Amino acid sequence: MKAIQVQNLGKRSSLTIGEVQTPKPSSSEILVQIKATALNRADLLQRTGNYPPPEGASEILGLEMSGVVEQVGDKVTKWQPGDRVFGLLAGGGYAEYCTIHEDMAMEIPENLSFEKAAAIPETFLTAFQALDWLGKLQEKETVLIHAAGSGVGTSAIQLAHHLFDAQIIATAGKQHKLDTAKELGADFAYNYKEQNYAKEIINDIGKDSVDVIVDFIGKPYWHKNMDVLAMDGRVVYLSFLGGHKIEELSLVPILRKRLTVMGSTLRNRSEDYKIRLTQAFASKTLTLFKDKTLEPVIDSTYDWTETEAAHQRMQNNKNTGKIVLTGM
Amino acid sequence: MKAIQVQNLGKRSSLTIGEVQTPKPSSSEILVQIKATALNRADLLQRTGNYPPPEGASEILGLEMSGVVEQVGDKVTKWQPGDRVFGLLAGGGYAEYCTIHEDMAMEIPENLSFEKAAAIPETFLTAFQALDWLGKLQEKETVLIHAAGSGVGTSAIQLAHHLFDAQIIATAGKQHKLDTAKELGADFAYNYKEQNYAKEIINDIGKDSVDVIVDFIGKPYWHKNMDVLAMDGRVVYLSFLGGHKIEELSLVPILRKRLTVMGSTLRNRSEDYKIRLTQAFASKTLTLFKDKTLEPVIDSTYDWTETEAAHQRMQNNKNTGKIVLTGM
Repeated sequence: MKAIQVQNLGKRSSLTIGEVQTPKPSSSEILVQIKATALNRADLLQRTGNYPPPEGASEILGLEMSGVVEQVGDKVTKWQPGDRVFGLLAGGGYAEYCTIHEDMAMEIPENLSFEKAAAIPETFLTAFQALDWLGKLQEKETVLIHAAGSGVGTSAIQLAHHLFDAQIIATAGKQHKLDTAKELGADFAYNYKEQNYAKEIINDIGKDSVDVIVDFIGKPYWHKNMDVLAMDGRVVYLSFLGGHKIEELSLVPILRKRLTVMGSTLRNRSEDYKIRLTQAFASKTLTLFKDKTLEPVIDSTYDWTETEAAHQRMQNNKNTGKIVLTGM
Repeated sequence: MKAIQVQNLGKRSSLTIGEVQTPKPSSSEILVQIKATALNRADLLQRTGNYPPPEGASEILGLEMSGVVEQVGDKVTKWQPGDRVFGLLAGGGYAEYCTIHEDMAMEIPENLSFEKAAAIPETFLTAFQALDWLGKLQEKETVLIHAAGSGVGTSAIQLAHHLFDAQIIATAGKQHKLDTAKELGADFAYNYKEQNYAKEIINDIGKDSVDVIVDFIGKPYWHKNMDVLAMDGRVVYLSFLGGHKIEELSLVPILRKRLTVMGSTLRNRSEDYKIRLTQAFASKTLTLFKDKTLEPVIDSTYDWTETEAAHQRMQNNKNTGKIVLTGM
């Protein structure tokens, strides 16, 4: 099969389409003909050599896909050739074919295109994990979602709105991202470049008012996060785009407000964990994708021969929502 | 009734026994004639004026007691006068009588003295909350317990050993405290004054080997804690005896190892929470106290007319285990 390959892993890496072995499904796996995949920051990191795929995962980039079942393993009971599926991968999405455990695949709801389906798994599962499994967001609680224009951000806002009826605060650095956040369900949206979001929150909602924070930024937001968190508040870190080193930090709020600070990435979780997460997510959301209550925000779609340009767009933070690759 | 009263709340406070109103049990409360109470660091803080009792709580010092039921409220079904009970208080232990919600009281196991029963609630419930409810310690996991000679430390070691069959690492600053820790079930015990416990743990057990840390120290241990925590590790902060300000902290381990950092104090929890915690604790441990598998470590017992000397002993960190007051 054809697959995108990284030449010169490192700072000057480039991408080419080459010929590789088509993977073979194990007895509990299905072989999927990929119709679309989508970009993640992990892809950009992986080609620099700084984020190697976890053990056992494909070396090929691509952490999610949609496509059509081509072949099923001996013990597969859920799927048959021709079924439309989508799901999370530990790698291997930038290719014509991939294998996936039958329980990791979800059925594409009617009327949902391959392009849209491919844009769902990473961001929505990450957001679902952060809000539900880690942050333990409860109905009507207040949630603060940073990097609200990102794929995970736009997904988290929708899930917080439709699954938890939460009071949602979003931060982003561009007006159009804040507008999107509000359209998706954010009640408050602050421009971190122009506003001190902590002051705004205390002013608009009150002191110690945020139950859950989903943070991708890290360092620049630590103190403000501590200031706005409510009693028993929780912070879930998914990345540190703004740096990770904090000078002078007091642990007092953690004790005084009984806070929980945690971090998680999805990729290095066990397959068993990802299966359970996928199943929990699918049972709560697939009908909502079907009736378009939930919709992935798609920034742009590129033919996979132009993946380099797609990567550049993400590298330059130009995207609001997901960048999709098609045409395999 | 007689009760110990704080004169001159502040740095020069003193204690006297005075006459105050005997509390009246509400319909769901019992009135207990107190036979013993025990000291907590919160008592020392409260008399300085820096740790006021939570709303609704007695102004009188004392967060735990054992005694005999004197009178029961209209709706009380569990107890009758003459029953031997012990339990957690939000305040009011340094007195002849106290009231307590019937569901917050536990029956004193046969053969357990009032003195020993009074030494159980704060430290064992705090340790149980830290290990089970917050740290989610699992059978056979590895737990690191700092300040192992303290009341909570000695309780946590016993619970980790008998309820979770955990691999237990203890730290303390005195050899006799380390000896006690080992007698109670610690597999490894390090003197933090003479040893770098992180290096010792990595050497004796391995890298990234600690699943749960119970920490009362804070600042001086942050980096070492991060170094030894395992994937999906958890840190529970109960106080910051060594300070709370950390210079130069990296958030990276939190994400890379998917850590959870949390803080909690027991006192300001809701009554409902304390009832659920007490019930969960009682159901798992009372038979173990009865057959002496679990035993509170008692440092010393003072007549309550000598409470000032008892406070001095705790202030000077002379105690290993609990300091009990009797003779009310």
